[in-house]
Amino acid sequence: MAQRLGKYTLCLPSMPAIAGYAAVAGKKEGEGPLGDKFDFVYEDSSAGAKTWEKAESIIHGDAVRRAISKAGLTDEQINVIFAGDLLNQCIGTTFGIRETGIPFAGVYGACSTMALSMALAAASVDGGLAGTAVASTSSHFCSAEKQFRMPLEYGGQRTPTAQWTATAAGATVISNCLGKAAIEKIIIGSIRDYGIKDANNMGAAMAPAACRTIADFLNDTCTRPDEYDMILTGDLGAVGSDLLCELMTKQENIDISAVHADCGLMLFDLAKQKDVGAGGSGCGCSGAVLCSEILPKIESGELKKVLFVGTGALMSSVSSLQSESIPAIAHGVLITGGEK
Amino acid sequence: MAQRLGKYTLCLPSMPAIAGYAAVAGKKEGEGPLGDKFDFVYEDSSAGAKTWEKAESIIHGDAVRRAISKAGLTDEQINVIFAGDLLNQCIGTTFGIRETGIPFAGVYGACSTMALSMALAAASVDGGLAGTAVASTSSHFCSAEKQFRMPLEYGGQRTPTAQWTATAAGATVISNCLGKAAIEKIIIGSIRDYGIKDANNMGAAMAPAACRTIADFLNDTCTRPDEYDMILTGDLGAVGSDLLCELMTKQENIDISAVHADCGLMLFDLAKQKDVGAGGSGCGCSGAVLCSEILPKIESGELKKVLFVGTGALMSSVSSLQSESIPAIAHGVLITGGEK
Repeated sequence: MAQRLGKYTLCLPSMPAIAGYAAVAGKKEGEGPLGDKFDFVYEDSSAGAKTWEKAESIIHGDAVRRAISKAGLTDEQINVIFAGDLLNQCIGTTFGIRETGIPFAGVYGACSTMALSMALAAASVDGGLAGTAVASTSSHFCSAEKQFRMPLEYGGQRTPTAQWTATAAGATVISNCLGKAAIEKIIIGSIRDYGIKDANNMGAAMAPAACRTIADFLNDTCTRPDEYDMILTGDLGAVGSDLLCELMTKQENIDISAVHADCGLMLFDLAKQKDVGAGGSGCGCSGAVLCSEILPKIESGELKKVLFVGTGALMSSVSSLQSESIPAIAHGVLITGGEK
Repeated sequence: MAQRLGKYTLCLPSMPAIAGYAAVAGKKEGEGPLGDKFDFVYEDSSAGAKTWEKAESIIHGDAVRRAISKAGLTDEQINVIFAGDLLNQCIGTTFGIRETGIPFAGVYGACSTMALSMALAAASVDGGLAGTAVASTSSHFCSAEKQFRMPLEYGGQRTPTAQWTATAAGATVISNCLGKAAIEKIIIGSIRDYGIKDANNMGAAMAPAACRTIADFLNDTCTRPDEYDMILTGDLGAVGSDLLCELMTKQENIDISAVHADCGLMLFDLAKQKDVGAGGSGCGCSGAVLCSEILPKIESGELKKVLFVGTGALMSSVSSLQSESIPAIAHGVLITGGEK
């Protein structure tokens, strides 16, 4: 039974374990700093499918299958999957997991989806709703560009503040058994909207939400940044990361810069890789970085305490065309190492 | 702590109460059989907004505000809101609840969203994640037509199997306090796809999912249909409802026809109201029917045991244009009367 700490944070006394995880990615992501850490790299970003949406479904389903298999389980043993993606009506997820037969609770949190689905999966395991739950997400550069921006064929120029939607998927299996990584606490964020309207500068729109959630978590738990090995946001990119550290210092009087890292800055080499702008983004970015770079280090003991905060920009193309600002949200999960 | 019954059903021993609820609807819905039962009817479907999307956000936010107020609570006292809608990136919800400051877990289940959000809210209350949680959803005929079908100005003809997306929103406040209606059990469904490709016949696409979830629930709980006052689907409409009863009898050997009702058939008078085709649909349909017609009858004791099964068609315009079939899902909550 979850225990409330302060106003927003939930402590999960059973410490649900991350029993398995997997990350798959596209060619460009495979050429980045984490290239050799993914479970699979699709050299052909179409994954052999006829459309980009179907390709995203394939990589999403692939990550889920691999995570379940690495946990030593079968689809039949999974009680529920919390999953979502950026595509309209979340079809990347729906068609990706259609054949599994796993009870499916669809979630939508834009790029915060990995953290949201993990938080709900962990809470479900802790609350007895599930013995074993999957949390997964995906994004695909081509399906996202087509939907949110321009047809790829148009060859649109990108501003330097824009982020590059990752072609990637990540999945975790969360269970009530023993594990080398566990989810100790969760926090569900609320919407923050500072009036940013530039859809090519999502980092700026999302930074205030990340700031609020991190500050709430630290206040609720009466902890300081130096008690964490890493406070990992996903995906603020270069612009949003700078803003977050500045907001934390100026508004909250908390300096997280020594332990802050961002999935969007880890997925690509911003200096060497072409066109990645301010860094990676998309649900799959934080999903894949977490499941390739972070969770193994928690399992090995290299990282002991990571606060993973997924950030999402909750606008749509329609709301932007209607001159609306970008509401943003950030959800967090505290992942710690060690057997229970 | 939730207890698993059989393979898919969860029993919530704390029996979270429905402490407040509200339904608001548009003009056409207000002219239907439930017209005088809604908390508010918008005579102007634009709700005074400049766009249909903003109108949907207004009615969504309105339902949430009314439900919280009727529960005698303030936004500050709500620990989490589970909510979603049909619009791309769920902007009906996001912009509707943006100002509340309530921690927000976005869900996507198409027209099953009311049942999904209620199931997750009830499980959260039972598991200690929240003392009080809101579950809400909305749909708007004009924003849905524009997004999924044709611009309204086109004046497209509708087939008789097509359903009419409700302009409506429903919200429930679920809490760990006493109440005259309580959520006793929940079931999260899995995706069913019988290969139906006709997006103008969603009832047919969704009936197999409803059949599976209802049969699983009855099997898991070792109960018969005559032990329920009502098995309420939302929103299969006329075509889907007939198919559901037939599937239940032929595939599962369970006759639910004596207790089956459907939100899509209750919202409109199919004989008298123009163009409503096979009945109402859209997330807001089951949300508003539940919160105007059903919950008061449970509170008064007229209905004692209602299995509410929300049904959703998880396709998008893009997946349909790519010749994909329509994956469907159904989630259930068992609502019972009486103080705890």
